[in-house]
Amino acid sequence: MAKEKSEKQSQSNDLKKRKPNRNKPNKKGILNKKQSQKNSSTKKPQNKKQNSNRKPKKPDVNVRIAFLGGLNEVGKNMTLYECQNDMILVDCGLAFPEPDMLGVDLVIPDFTYVEQNVDKIKGIFITHGHEDHIGGLAYLLQRVNIPVYGTKLTIGLIEGKLQEHKILDKVSLNVIQPKDKVQLGCFEVEAIHVNHSIPDALALAINSPAGLIIQTGDFKIDTTPIDGEVIDLARIAKLGEKGVLCLLSDSTNAQRPGYTASERTVGESFARLFQKADGKRLIVATFASNIHRVQQIIDVAKSVGRKVALSGRSLENVVETASRLGYLNVPEGILVSIDSVSRYPHDKLVIITTGSQGEPMSALYRMAFSEHRRVEIGTGDYVIISATPIPGNEKTVGKVVDELLKRGAEVVYERMYEVHVSGHACQEELRLMLSLAKPKFFIPVHGEQKHLRSHAQVAESMGMAPGNIYIADNGKQVELSKRKMAVVEDVPAGKIFVDGYGVGDVGSAVIRERKRLAEDGLMIISAVIDKETGMLVSGPDIISRGFVYVRDSEQLIAEAKLVAQIVIDECVHEGFVEWSRIRNRMRDDISRLLYDRTKRSPMVLPVISSI
Amino acid sequence: MAKEKSEKQSQSNDLKKRKPNRNKPNKKGILNKKQSQKNSSTKKPQNKKQNSNRKPKKPDVNVRIAFLGGLNEVGKNMTLYECQNDMILVDCGLAFPEPDMLGVDLVIPDFTYVEQNVDKIKGIFITHGHEDHIGGLAYLLQRVNIPVYGTKLTIGLIEGKLQEHKILDKVSLNVIQPKDKVQLGCFEVEAIHVNHSIPDALALAINSPAGLIIQTGDFKIDTTPIDGEVIDLARIAKLGEKGVLCLLSDSTNAQRPGYTASERTVGESFARLFQKADGKRLIVATFASNIHRVQQIIDVAKSVGRKVALSGRSLENVVETASRLGYLNVPEGILVSIDSVSRYPHDKLVIITTGSQGEPMSALYRMAFSEHRRVEIGTGDYVIISATPIPGNEKTVGKVVDELLKRGAEVVYERMYEVHVSGHACQEELRLMLSLAKPKFFIPVHGEQKHLRSHAQVAESMGMAPGNIYIADNGKQVELSKRKMAVVEDVPAGKIFVDGYGVGDVGSAVIRERKRLAEDGLMIISAVIDKETGMLVSGPDIISRGFVYVRDSEQLIAEAKLVAQIVIDECVHEGFVEWSRIRNRMRDDISRLLYDRTKRSPMVLPVISSI
Repeated sequence: MAKEKSEKQSQSNDLKKRKPNRNKPNKKGILNKKQSQKNSSTKKPQNKKQNSNRKPKKPDVNVRIAFLGGLNEVGKNMTLYECQNDMILVDCGLAFPEPDMLGVDLVIPDFTYVEQNVDKIKGIFITHGHEDHIGGLAYLLQRVNIPVYGTKLTIGLIEGKLQEHKILDKVSLNVIQPKDKVQLGCFEVEAIHVNHSIPDALALAINSPAGLIIQTGDFKIDTTPIDGEVIDLARIAKLGEKGVLCLLSDSTNAQRPGYTASERTVGESFARLFQKADGKRLIVATFASNIHRVQQIIDVAKSVGRKVALSGRSLENVVETASRLGYLNVPEGILVSIDSVSRYPHDKLVIITTGSQGEPMSALYRMAFSEHRRVEIGTGDYVIISATPIPGNEKTVGKVVDELLKRGAEVVYERMYEVHVSGHACQEELRLMLSLAKPKFFIPVHGEQKHLRSHAQVAESMGMAPGNIYIADNGKQVELSKRKMAVVEDVPAGKIFVDGYGVGDVGSAVIRERKRLAEDGLMIISAVIDKETGMLVSGPDIISRGFVYVRDSEQLIAEAKLVAQIVIDECVHEGFVEWSRIRNRMRDDISRLLYDRTKRSPMVLPVISSI
Repeated sequence: MAKEKSEKQSQSNDLKKRKPNRNKPNKKGILNKKQSQKNSSTKKPQNKKQNSNRKPKKPDVNVRIAFLGGLNEVGKNMTLYECQNDMILVDCGLAFPEPDMLGVDLVIPDFTYVEQNVDKIKGIFITHGHEDHIGGLAYLLQRVNIPVYGTKLTIGLIEGKLQEHKILDKVSLNVIQPKDKVQLGCFEVEAIHVNHSIPDALALAINSPAGLIIQTGDFKIDTTPIDGEVIDLARIAKLGEKGVLCLLSDSTNAQRPGYTASERTVGESFARLFQKADGKRLIVATFASNIHRVQQIIDVAKSVGRKVALSGRSLENVVETASRLGYLNVPEGILVSIDSVSRYPHDKLVIITTGSQGEPMSALYRMAFSEHRRVEIGTGDYVIISATPIPGNEKTVGKVVDELLKRGAEVVYERMYEVHVSGHACQEELRLMLSLAKPKFFIPVHGEQKHLRSHAQVAESMGMAPGNIYIADNGKQVELSKRKMAVVEDVPAGKIFVDGYGVGDVGSAVIRERKRLAEDGLMIISAVIDKETGMLVSGPDIISRGFVYVRDSEQLIAEAKLVAQIVIDECVHEGFVEWSRIRNRMRDDISRLLYDRTKRSPMVLPVISSI
């Protein structure tokens, strides 16, 4: 593939020939482009002259790509582009905490590099409104003020988030449409419509003096999409013909052969299952943001004469936003309040609900565990889980399914019927994207190592030279020119934990302490000691939490007290009372006792007061 | 199926006609059976006479089945059978803790019901040597002395466990072979060979005065097993012809259509992949107990001239036991120590390792994270993960795969090649079992609700009456007679947590405390107060763990101290110093402060000493 490309590439290089102001901010890149077209015929002589004694005498214009998130992980996607002292960002997502990140609510990218370069940054483009692409944005914008660009729905969803963080009025939000071009510094960014599991998703064609880079965002190729708008492959093909320097493409499904099915097939399954569920109340769980899925449920409900109720705050919010902005067509009178569902016969109702990932406290979870205020699950219910578990959620989803089954509901889950399709391209679609964009260089993004590797293999299988493919990592930075792709210095990148109001105040040390406490709990030994004599005035007393049932462990508690007493006595006997020494010895001796007796290592905290 | 069965069933009922001693211990059940055969022709007149005015005048002999574990869960299988005051047990497994069982090492069944009935219990049969069938046994035998019956390998593996618990010399271990019959009280238990992912697995035909019950244990139908011994379907068929009152059958794969592939197919994949990996060092991760898998790896290694090294303690133990007992054929000189692997060229070596589930600190995990003393992973390695992730382990396996890939190894994982087959029967095999055993009643066992349900549906699809199928739960008990299956009173059953040396001393209260500590850590406020005046003598001082970086939170800590001071002052001012009141108010006021400031709820522990 790289070979096929060389000719095309030279065309594209002509097109984007660098201008004299190559290391300064360029506020009018669009002019630049016209000039370069005029000058293209002079390129070869120029090069020839300059290369006569040294090579490369005059360096190519470079564009740099720094990866701030989204590699070797699923989530918190964020990419930074730099060219001629201008920078733009693409996406700012969050990741959900791994099980070992105890107490952490969510994870966002490290914004250090952005803050260091805030003067250069001209704007941030958001490809679509999923959490892994917008979830970090409010935290970013609390720190730096950068204009935001996205489609109407994406911006609508972002508005909600900024409102929650009370910074909506401080931020410049700019609605763009597919085919729009935005000139920011020397970058000209063109929006390209793609299909995905949320409407209004974009790929970005990022034109720089160094060449054109396409970042696909999350995408799939759906030739029968619900909104009728097929991914704009024609535009990608056109750009491919002109010459694409580099493609950054979605790797989520790179391990899966074939094609991802159309969203429309899910609607067909719903139509069949809604017939099958005749007489029963339907409960369909799906992702709140999958507006086309919600549309299809509503459409099928209407066709069979059922009302629709929504359960789950995020779903209600998304439906409100999507309806208001015209992305969801809710027929008059079909929606009924979840509070009124008891008034409708089972066979006249569909409840759309959150909780398709088995999230504790989600609406479906509460239904399954009889904690929902309005919905009691029974034999008259037909539950469809219109989603597949995200890796790591298999157990929680399974738990919810089991509870629903125990309550006598019929449940459609896992791959029993085609009630879910992915929003990401499978291998054949990825091949199509590569073959249309015909990039010189290729960087698989969005995914774990195995996804990135598989995507690289897909590209290699099409003849692309392994040397032109780069499997990056968060914190890595590449420099691209028409001739080469080089890995340059790392940039700061990492995981910042959000816990409650705290952003970054919980780090690895605090997490380590939580792990210790989670494993074996703690024991506090308190004592009051006379400052002068070192004699015990009060205590030792013991408080334990998360360690043992104190009532059943009286002997152990007594032994621990005795050890504390001995430590204090011995320290007094040795004539010198040093507080830290007493504390350390008490901690060590009691820890040893507890481990010997229980094979557990609770955190031992001596609290010694002196008076 | 139930209809087809009625005729057969009446034969079987004849066979097991109850004897006069129906509610007393019957030490010679085998005689009983012969007598019943003699008497079979008299059955109808008898019934006729007795049913003339009341029905049933003379009750049938009953057998009860109590479920102590293994239902609505994967693991800790344990079943109790009771007839005429005799009891026997089948299996005593452990379960691995769910993610929310913080700090718990393993989970075992509640033995209360066993202890209450210890005098009646004649023995425990172990179907095979997997942890979910033997892992609770040492804990059981520490409390009650019950003779154990199992095949040679199963007993060999149990011996190791009892030795660890230092109770080997106190326990009666009895080796049985397929086709053996053991008479215990009124039960006659016959061992039937089945295929599974560990050799020497059994189904049990449990003959009682009330009828014959078949418990399959974990099984699959492998017509080309590595040890040449196909599951003894002929015996099941024979018993089915005589009449089976009830079948308890393995539901693990009841959701999967078709047949489980033969273990032999894995060996064929190994042969192909070992060729493919030519020149590279092979590392194969699998379950330690899958002895046939290990055998196949060794066989293929030998055929291509590679030495074999083992890494992982459980693997070394199992290989030692299996070789000693003749279940594993290790050619002379092929095994080399893991400490010597650096002496062999990469293409002359296969390392078999534990860690196929991504378990932290397992051998493969340590290799992936460069923590293994002898094995450094690089581009010269070809890693085969010969297992599929157990639900819940997907993430950890994925993490290990990603690390191996990052280090440049080639990795075969997930379903890339046929390097793993299940040890459990799929739907067609389950149908075959049902059609041969032809039970009157059917109880799906071993699995979560969805597995049990699917298995019930399989039986229903064969024509079995839903009323003859019972989806049980832990703690449930059924009573079976030839006429009916009735759910009778519950028995004590539950999850007992093992944490270090402690068995059952960590319960839900301790786990709740651990969860709280894991989420947000703790804050201790210590103060010394004068007993007489209520005045503060020392403090308040603050210790926090797992909450915030104290150094970055000086203001918050100062505020917390101030609140503590105010609480003490106010209490003094109110004239009465009640310790618990001060403590509670301090806890509430400081908790509120911390939540307002951080939106977190650390455990707040006031430690107030009075002097």
